[in-house]
Amino acid sequence: MTTRERMLKALAAILLWAFGACSALAQTDPLPSWNDGASKRAIVSFVEAVTRPGSPDYVAPAERIATFDNDGTLWVEQPAYAQAFFIVDRMKAMGAGKPEWRDNPLFAAVIEKGLAGLTGATEHDLASLVGATHGGMTPAAFRALVNEWLRTARHPRFKRRFDELVYRPMLDVLDYLRANGFKTYIVSGGGVEFMRAFAEPVYGIPPEQVIGSRAALKFETREGRATLVREGSIEFIDDKAGKAMAIEQIIGRRPLIAFGNSDGDFEMLQWTTQAGGRRLGVIIHHTDAEREYAYDRTSSVGRLDRALDQSAAQGWVIVDMKADRKSVWR
Amino acid sequence: MTTRERMLKALAAILLWAFGACSALAQTDPLPSWNDGASKRAIVSFVEAVTRPGSPDYVAPAERIATFDNDGTLWVEQPAYAQAFFIVDRMKAMGAGKPEWRDNPLFAAVIEKGLAGLTGATEHDLASLVGATHGGMTPAAFRALVNEWLRTARHPRFKRRFDELVYRPMLDVLDYLRANGFKTYIVSGGGVEFMRAFAEPVYGIPPEQVIGSRAALKFETREGRATLVREGSIEFIDDKAGKAMAIEQIIGRRPLIAFGNSDGDFEMLQWTTQAGGRRLGVIIHHTDAEREYAYDRTSSVGRLDRALDQSAAQGWVIVDMKADRKSVWR
Repeated sequence: MTTRERMLKALAAILLWAFGACSALAQTDPLPSWNDGASKRAIVSFVEAVTRPGSPDYVAPAERIATFDNDGTLWVEQPAYAQAFFIVDRMKAMGAGKPEWRDNPLFAAVIEKGLAGLTGATEHDLASLVGATHGGMTPAAFRALVNEWLRTARHPRFKRRFDELVYRPMLDVLDYLRANGFKTYIVSGGGVEFMRAFAEPVYGIPPEQVIGSRAALKFETREGRATLVREGSIEFIDDKAGKAMAIEQIIGRRPLIAFGNSDGDFEMLQWTTQAGGRRLGVIIHHTDAEREYAYDRTSSVGRLDRALDQSAAQGWVIVDMKADRKSVWR
Repeated sequence: MTTRERMLKALAAILLWAFGACSALAQTDPLPSWNDGASKRAIVSFVEAVTRPGSPDYVAPAERIATFDNDGTLWVEQPAYAQAFFIVDRMKAMGAGKPEWRDNPLFAAVIEKGLAGLTGATEHDLASLVGATHGGMTPAAFRALVNEWLRTARHPRFKRRFDELVYRPMLDVLDYLRANGFKTYIVSGGGVEFMRAFAEPVYGIPPEQVIGSRAALKFETREGRATLVREGSIEFIDDKAGKAMAIEQIIGRRPLIAFGNSDGDFEMLQWTTQAGGRRLGVIIHHTDAEREYAYDRTSSVGRLDRALDQSAAQGWVIVDMKADRKSVWR
């Protein structure tokens, strides 16, 4: 064998190894925390169909938009939304310095009884609690407050940080979609700045891909410096039809794939899957009382009724959390 | 020379060639349609400072947000905003089928006299014209209408399509920033769906990076299908303090660099350059009556007065369009 032949042989070996590595990579399970089943197959075959060059359903990378609800879809929402725990903790922390709050029956009840003080609260009541605890500061100061709270607050059942109670199977989906050129968005009823505080480190979703409910902002020039301050009022509620509207106003493209878990996601899934061309709507059905929670039609948080009834007609995939997932938390 | 030596020599030649090519690329003028001068130097030295690893001003790619006003910054805005021409043309086209419009003095004046019919129009008048011409259809239908109009409308002085009257030097800046890892956004008073109709093919800016004024949307289910319809009312005006607010609400990060050309961009530049760390605010000053237009303090369109006065104190770069640009149009 001449030197040249040896070098060519070595090159061939390297190429074969590289090919083998690529091929092994391609055969790696794209959703390792999902059990094999109809849900996993539906997601994988959808992604393959819209990303494989030459496929009749092929969609260019720029058009690959995926939207995710947050509470109950990406992280735990029982026994109450994490943001409700945050409100209660803020009310308690702030209440000491606000003796006048004792004259407000709602505020006094929340400070005294915590979440139980919210029983029977109207939407107007909730808005007043949000205003009292979320307003009067800059968005940056608010995010810092959320991060400080996340550091110390613990979920009542699992005794873990709330941002540890994110679903491993959904992190797999986020990674899998991004590896296939999708831009992943949160579209959730939660406060946009509340979610931005942790969305990037926890989900890999940057602030500009987080869409949520919004506080009104006020622009002020303080000592010559531009300042934005969160007002006590809510400017936009990103729920139900609001989700479809926010997707149009902010993203300006109809998603290819959308994930939700409650009737609040109905219109987002409709707007996604009725856009023409191949699309996928996925509903996370909480059926896992042992490892997490089981709830749907009668739950006060994350009620799933209408979307469950219509999923067959709409062609949406219903994920059975108990059967479909291998592992629960990140 | 052995075979091995010859191969090594060939490899060395390839490496040298590759190195030379890279080096030549690095030395290529990043803003070829700009004359050498203070403006160009300020932009290039800023970009180098925030992107060079090890630089004290280094910023990670994810944080590299650049925002651009549209009218007068990226494309021509004289003698009137392109969207005003669009409104006039729509009024004329629709007027034939709407005899009742003749009873509305404003509508009748616009249909009869065109732009001149807008003289003395109030903000409320303009909103009613926008409502009459932009409402009652889906966003997709509206974009199609804008594209059809762009195909046929011509600028009164230059006799060219409006989307040909975009500034070559600004396309250079967009390309240069994107090549350096920046995400480029439009943040403009123009209608968001009006701009999305052409922003991607003309500027390389995708729909989700276009922020503008917004029509209210209505969600309807028509024969079981989700539909969004533009209402006649304006939900948000993306001008002045509104630009800073929209940047916070939608992007959630403060830009590193912002380009504007009028007092409507003042707060966006303030919000950008006062964010701490190295930032750059750039004002496009229209000084080129011969090749384009010259206007500033007394112009009814694109008035630049306060921002010109305060640019020195704020450290903003004032681009002198006549002196700074080699070529005008794309």
